[in-house]
Amino acid sequence: MGVPACRESFKQNLLMTKLLFTPLTINRMTLANRILVTAMVTRLSGEDGFVNQDIVDRYVRFARGEAGLIVVEATAVHQSKSGPLLRMSSDEFIPSHRALLKQMRDAGPSKVALQIIHFLKIARSGWRQTADMLSLDDIQFIIEAYGDAAARVRDAGYDAVELHMAHAYTLSSFLSARNKRLDEYGGRSLEARLRLPSEVLVRVRQKVGPDYPIGIRFDAEECIKGGYGLSESKYMALRFAQLGADYVSLSAGGKFEDAIKKEGEPLYPYTGYSGDRTMPPASYQYAANVYLAEGVKTFINAHGYPTPVVTTGKINTPGMAEEILAAGKADVVGFARALLADPDWPKKARLGREDAIIRCIYGNVCKNLDENFKQVRCGSLWPRQYLHAPEAPDDHEPPVWPAGGAQLSAKLNENGQVRLTWRAAMDPQGVYGYEIFRAVNEGPFVHLTSSMTASHVEEYALAGNRYAYYVRAYDFAGNRSPDSNIAEITLDPRFSVPEGKTLELDGRVEAEQGFSA
Amino acid sequence: MGVPACRESFKQNLLMTKLLFTPLTINRMTLANRILVTAMVTRLSGEDGFVNQDIVDRYVRFARGEAGLIVVEATAVHQSKSGPLLRMSSDEFIPSHRALLKQMRDAGPSKVALQIIHFLKIARSGWRQTADMLSLDDIQFIIEAYGDAAARVRDAGYDAVELHMAHAYTLSSFLSARNKRLDEYGGRSLEARLRLPSEVLVRVRQKVGPDYPIGIRFDAEECIKGGYGLSESKYMALRFAQLGADYVSLSAGGKFEDAIKKEGEPLYPYTGYSGDRTMPPASYQYAANVYLAEGVKTFINAHGYPTPVVTTGKINTPGMAEEILAAGKADVVGFARALLADPDWPKKARLGREDAIIRCIYGNVCKNLDENFKQVRCGSLWPRQYLHAPEAPDDHEPPVWPAGGAQLSAKLNENGQVRLTWRAAMDPQGVYGYEIFRAVNEGPFVHLTSSMTASHVEEYALAGNRYAYYVRAYDFAGNRSPDSNIAEITLDPRFSVPEGKTLELDGRVEAEQGFSA
Repeated sequence: MGVPACRESFKQNLLMTKLLFTPLTINRMTLANRILVTAMVTRLSGEDGFVNQDIVDRYVRFARGEAGLIVVEATAVHQSKSGPLLRMSSDEFIPSHRALLKQMRDAGPSKVALQIIHFLKIARSGWRQTADMLSLDDIQFIIEAYGDAAARVRDAGYDAVELHMAHAYTLSSFLSARNKRLDEYGGRSLEARLRLPSEVLVRVRQKVGPDYPIGIRFDAEECIKGGYGLSESKYMALRFAQLGADYVSLSAGGKFEDAIKKEGEPLYPYTGYSGDRTMPPASYQYAANVYLAEGVKTFINAHGYPTPVVTTGKINTPGMAEEILAAGKADVVGFARALLADPDWPKKARLGREDAIIRCIYGNVCKNLDENFKQVRCGSLWPRQYLHAPEAPDDHEPPVWPAGGAQLSAKLNENGQVRLTWRAAMDPQGVYGYEIFRAVNEGPFVHLTSSMTASHVEEYALAGNRYAYYVRAYDFAGNRSPDSNIAEITLDPRFSVPEGKTLELDGRVEAEQGFSA
Repeated sequence: MGVPACRESFKQNLLMTKLLFTPLTINRMTLANRILVTAMVTRLSGEDGFVNQDIVDRYVRFARGEAGLIVVEATAVHQSKSGPLLRMSSDEFIPSHRALLKQMRDAGPSKVALQIIHFLKIARSGWRQTADMLSLDDIQFIIEAYGDAAARVRDAGYDAVELHMAHAYTLSSFLSARNKRLDEYGGRSLEARLRLPSEVLVRVRQKVGPDYPIGIRFDAEECIKGGYGLSESKYMALRFAQLGADYVSLSAGGKFEDAIKKEGEPLYPYTGYSGDRTMPPASYQYAANVYLAEGVKTFINAHGYPTPVVTTGKINTPGMAEEILAAGKADVVGFARALLADPDWPKKARLGREDAIIRCIYGNVCKNLDENFKQVRCGSLWPRQYLHAPEAPDDHEPPVWPAGGAQLSAKLNENGQVRLTWRAAMDPQGVYGYEIFRAVNEGPFVHLTSSMTASHVEEYALAGNRYAYYVRAYDFAGNRSPDSNIAEITLDPRFSVPEGKTLELDGRVEAEQGFSA
């Protein structure tokens, strides 16, 4: 058995991305492509709630990447003491947003929305305010606060406003099947659960006018015990469409109900299974929540509403996004971690340079930073000192291996892991990371994962198969080193069977995109 | 606006069920249809672990219903003190199973499998044994116990043996991504997690011979924080197929990790979200786990394995089952609650009498009984005194309404609920229950849910729509009363908008099968 002859050819992998780059008009706003940067908490703003230079730098970096729509992070509609969080709770915040937008528009063609949020109180003791603790006056306040903040969003010059109704926050807590109120805003009927979100949407529409795009982001499934699923969320989407929402952006999970309590810390809503569904980890399937978008889109389209549906959740390559659009499962594809890792993803896809994308490995270091109240960055792939994604310098010199080559080796541990090690590459402007490619049996090489260090532990090699690996280094300009040597390992196909016999597996597995460590 | 002209016509609803009634050969066993009764705990056996009369009655009742394959409940491979649970841990248990099988075969044409299980220890304190506490000797014991029990299953005359590798039990705990062992049976690699289940399967095959059908039931997704999903379970299915499993039956969730602790009671593994995914409740979407079966089947078929895939999870009508088969998402459709509610479901479907099926409403009273260590029955639909599904008596006299009719009324509560009430029907042999039908706007009437009492609270009526309802009573023979009067209610389409304005919803929702309370 020789090693596979062909290494990964990016030419072959260049899938057509015609649909992904088809413009889309949402109310008066036209997106150049179907790529949306979903709102991501950054913890970059000051405690004062104003846009600061770090915020500007983060979003200008996205703007240079050419996503169709960039949704700037959740911004509070109310005065609140809640750490580094943008606010739009009074007019004084508007000028800093105007300045942000000016710089984003100078940097690239992306449309820009602001996500606005109201959240309930949480305490370090573990106590948290729930929907049933709010008075009718509190509810009226929330409606007006959303309306006023939305008007400010428009005044500031954003192209659209997105209303946050997902995860653990106020409006999601009303939509929730675990809303415990008994009144007309309560959990006893779907209509009552929809009332506050509906009234907020109506008020926002009044404030921003008919020609201003409003998006709604909400959970297509709560992913908690007794929570709602698709059979209710499709009616929620229909309601929002009926009330004139211009797009619906679907998330999943992210709830307090299954969050894991850390002593002395307020609950963080992405620590339970529902949080895994919001930001599926490396081991979880790609495009994990697309079936929810498909269910919602099919339903509202069948009811005569063409309202665009945005799907999100571990979608990482242009080919995967195109496939989702081609299958009619969504109208827009949202990315958080993948575009945090490489804000230039859209531009590279447009130019047919998918090969140069720095691929998210879903290590969720970004999520852990948020959980620990630290500034959010890509801790899996960015160099340690970078607060934002590195810019590609004007550098055409690729990394090189030391004399004697990469010396990649693959060794099997007793516990079934394959340990890959290699020698560090060198680059005058610095090595950014290593891409690891794998071929199974006679299959082609495909990208398995990436690493910032010169080693990787592979947990998914299976008995009876032959695995071949190579690695290559890349620098900040996206230049790739020569491929390393190929390291090969064949895993014993025999199974221990009593009485001295052995049993051989008679089949093989194929490598595929969508299964990586 | 008049009321809809046509009531539900079952003639129109009679979908072709050609695929559902296409025989399937699994190893040497040929099923008459693609309907499988999944293993359901009954708590009917004695503490001694022998088949008793209640067990016989329960399974003979299923056998009369003509399901292609009936999987008799999880039966321990080991001696254990664990309440009313069947055991196959020594030869002394074989005769009682032979007697059960004889009676089942006299009653109907179903093939019969026995599911065998090993489970770890749990205590009222909340302590539970986990995979990492087992020694290599313990592991060897488990392998041998499965092998020996499987040989007894064959000796007893069962048509097949099913190995329980799902939910909270031993083999599932080894497969789990949360397996904490560090050794060759441990959680550090997929291969190591697969080792014990693989060795059990190999040992069982040795013991039962090549011509005996072996099925594997396991989770396609764990549905817990840090658990595995489809990207790993498809490889598990492939491994089982490679090792000669004759079918794979896919479940989801049912784990201890997210179970809710009740003081003084041992953990019950279906109390968290993962339990909702094993037995999706009324509010959750139908056929909720079929996408997992589709992913597994696509993957193993592409690898050259035609091993039949069984899907389960809130699939309730012949039409829905046929649709799943027609779309190629599974080869066999498994039912638990739907066939507990009406064991005659397969026979009625075969005869084109879908209209006579007593339809499961997914109230999960059966699950609650199990959770509380009570004998498991359908507490939502069966009359109180019945331990098993009522037999249809030779009775052709339908229930009737009292003089003056049913007087069905529909009233809107302030919290958005529509409360339906009607007068009780009468029947000489007893009224079994009421079916509730609903039409939305100009749509057709479809079955919404069923009730044992003369009232129902509808939580899903939405503003801007007109709902019409009728009910009818049914008796134990399946005779239906005349339809009641139609009660109609129109929900205000206006939304509260400040400044004295109103906003009307401009769209309607349609009724559909697959959304019921």
